[in-house]
Amino acid sequence: MPAMPEPMNFCPNCGAPTEFRIPEGDDRRRNICTATGEIFYDNPRNVVGTIVEREGRILMCRRAIEPRRHFWTLPAGFLELGETSADGAARETLEEAGVTVREPRLFNMIDVTHIGQIHIFFIADMIGEDYAPGLESSEVTFLAEDEIDWPQLAFPTIHRTLERYFASRRTGDFGVRVESLGSQDWRAMALDREPRD
Amino acid sequence: MPAMPEPMNFCPNCGAPTEFRIPEGDDRRRNICTATGEIFYDNPRNVVGTIVEREGRILMCRRAIEPRRHFWTLPAGFLELGETSADGAARETLEEAGVTVREPRLFNMIDVTHIGQIHIFFIADMIGEDYAPGLESSEVTFLAEDEIDWPQLAFPTIHRTLERYFASRRTGDFGVRVESLGSQDWRAMALDREPRD
Ligand SMILES: [Zn+2]
Ligand SMILES: [Zn+2]
Repeated sequence: MPAMPEPMNFCPNCGAPTEFRIPEGDDRRRNICTATGEIFYDNPRNVVGTIVEREGRILMCRRAIEPRRHFWTLPAGFLELGETSADGAARETLEEAGVTVREPRLFNMIDVTHIGQIHIFFIADMIGEDYAPGLESSEVTFLAEDEIDWPQLAFPTIHRTLERYFASRRTGDFGVRVESLGSQDWRAMALDREPRD
Repeated sequence: MPAMPEPMNFCPNCGAPTEFRIPEGDDRRRNICTATGEIFYDNPRNVVGTIVEREGRILMCRRAIEPRRHFWTLPAGFLELGETSADGAARETLEEAGVTVREPRLFNMIDVTHIGQIHIFFIADMIGEDYAPGLESSEVTFLAEDEIDWPQLAFPTIHRTLERYFASRRTGDFGVRVESLGSQDWRAMALDREPRD
């Protein structure tokens, strides 16, 4: 996932070579078709996920796929065309954890500019009792705050979101927060490089 | 702007033809390079903008470009790679209205699934007194609630965001709202098809 637009080589419409330059009236480089002049834009992508609590514990998945295979995450994934952000978060929760949720409420939004993403988490209520790992998870469980192995979390935004959630639970303030996480924050969190068994 | 992935014809990396089909383990059609198997994903894009109030009036721009040329909008545009959503909203405000803002605070987030977009608005404070139309605006002004020509607004999300903002001003509740706007809502708002002079 790029932080800035990256050159492509060929126009996906007509197959002509593309140029990577600043179009007239613009101020950043874009891919432009040399045959038709069509401009192709690349924009940040949204990752949507949920925080699901059951008897004080949080629904978490162990990743069965790269990146960060074997590390722990909240259910989350890329928002798809045609779905709302809340629906996308619910879909990911069902796909990765086998958990059906209702009424996702926005909790936080984290700009991760150095990878061109926004991570958006919703607090959602579990329907029923079922949970099971989907194709992208090797394990699904519910963890209390003191059961979370923090350096074994998959991504800094998961770390930050969980921190904030437990803080909100103590203060009772679940108001939406917007923040950004840079590569310095990523280093400061000191997530493990290797997964534990 | 598509609501669902649309077929491309050629791989932007190697120029080979692409196929448009459901990859193994996926459940929706993607563009796939027939030479390398690389999968290309298309995701919703974020539009970011601001609500800037000065002496009770709201900063608004008349569009100098299509779509909805000559209609009225809040300053807003596509979020770019490498910037936070708040910085993007501030950048658009400077580009379209010549207004410098500080401290954008998230106000609403509107999923517009039938065009594959999320529209995100921030309330921001104006710095200084300068304002002037940028390249994409023909006019910039500040309008009170009863000066807004509602059917002449450019987009339904602008209509909804302004409605909500004035309601928030009356109740004092500026808490973040998440909602979605569908094509039915667009029709119900009955925005004019033609701009007034
Ligand atoms: Zn072309
Ligand atoms: Zn290819």
